[in-house]
Amino acid sequence: MSGTLYGVGVGPGAPDLMTLRAARLIEGAGVIAYPTLAGAASFARSIAADLIPAGAREIIMDVPMTLDRAPAQAAYDAGAAQIADALIAGDDVVCLCEGDPFFYGSFMYLHARLNTQFTVKVVPGVTSVTACAAEAGRPLVARNERLTILPGPMDEAALRERIAGAEAVAIMKVGRHLPKLRAVIEDLGLTDHATYIERATLPEQVVTPLRGAPEKAPYFSMILLTKGADPWL
Amino acid sequence: MSGTLYGVGVGPGAPDLMTLRAARLIEGAGVIAYPTLAGAASFARSIAADLIPAGAREIIMDVPMTLDRAPAQAAYDAGAAQIADALIAGDDVVCLCEGDPFFYGSFMYLHARLNTQFTVKVVPGVTSVTACAAEAGRPLVARNERLTILPGPMDEAALRERIAGAEAVAIMKVGRHLPKLRAVIEDLGLTDHATYIERATLPEQVVTPLRGAPEKAPYFSMILLTKGADPWL
Repeated sequence: MSGTLYGVGVGPGAPDLMTLRAARLIEGAGVIAYPTLAGAASFARSIAADLIPAGAREIIMDVPMTLDRAPAQAAYDAGAAQIADALIAGDDVVCLCEGDPFFYGSFMYLHARLNTQFTVKVVPGVTSVTACAAEAGRPLVARNERLTILPGPMDEAALRERIAGAEAVAIMKVGRHLPKLRAVIEDLGLTDHATYIERATLPEQVVTPLRGAPEKAPYFSMILLTKGADPWL
Repeated sequence: MSGTLYGVGVGPGAPDLMTLRAARLIEGAGVIAYPTLAGAASFARSIAADLIPAGAREIIMDVPMTLDRAPAQAAYDAGAAQIADALIAGDDVVCLCEGDPFFYGSFMYLHARLNTQFTVKVVPGVTSVTACAAEAGRPLVARNERLTILPGPMDEAALRERIAGAEAVAIMKVGRHLPKLRAVIEDLGLTDHATYIERATLPEQVVTPLRGAPEKAPYFSMILLTKGADPWL
């Protein structure tokens, strides 16, 4: 009988923000899989590191950093083939995913490739969005407010329109897009409503009003913006 | 020295989707607090039940179900006063929250009342949104897609506009709003893109294409809708 593929969210960064289910699966894993980006260390693996059994086999998918989509898809093809071999051999495979597997997670590439042929189970994880709100001490949405989650790479006009029409906003993947995002938010008169958070829940975390944000933001950074549309107090 | 108030997300329903941090805090709690709605049992408490120490004191805030906001605010005032007394006495207080404390969570009412006077820490939890996506086997957002989270009680015109302009959509708190939501989604030609999920991760969970959804939905139900805007495969 074939093994089961588990897409396991390991949460936003602090190892103890993993779920009990994720921890149990990782501790019992014979085969662990995860993607790395252009040869860099895996953040997901670093979160789970203390729980990975000494003898576990590791399937690493190294995803090249290119604008062209084909090389990344080829890396997932190759990874999916290795994972399929392990599943066919009867092993369960635990695939580690930062945050949540289906929330901007690369696990969806494996899910799409393997879901029809094998049993695939997804273990949801704490996302960076609620982790950032927790660390910022900043409620996200109450009552009948709407939450819009936007990726920082969006173009300026689209960002402006979406932010203007939204209530509570989380902007993910800030990184090199910070100057553009600052300009749009300032132009909409919303700077005083915006908080910048970087590497939430990790020891090196930064939480500051957007005005005090550093000039350079890493990929793992976010802007939370709430307009207080619903006066919930 | 005053104790610390912890707002602890216990996740979407399955007890093992609690985080390691949440479990540790609950297991060690001397004082546990949670709201109940109009005298009903607390869902958050039921998720955490097996971890609550036998001798723990429980502070229950019973929130009346009224459209008028004042009675609910009075219940949180009274609960906050009891929690404040415990904190002043030097006890830590663990407040249990379904899902995540700051994501449509009533903990924000306590946070607002106690945050300036006491140390308040928020432990983020797995939200129903990613739990529903996991159970439905349905990726939420990839690459540069946007996610819009809407509450079912919104009026029909506003829902129509928001859904029409969105890419991936999660509609929370479906409950008695299901007929209205069905009509809007059908009218927008999106019924075939919509999945209905009820009581995600619990044994009595329901996952079905929206077409097959029951006539009556409980409060803990959701519709996920993805238009496939970004062809990520």
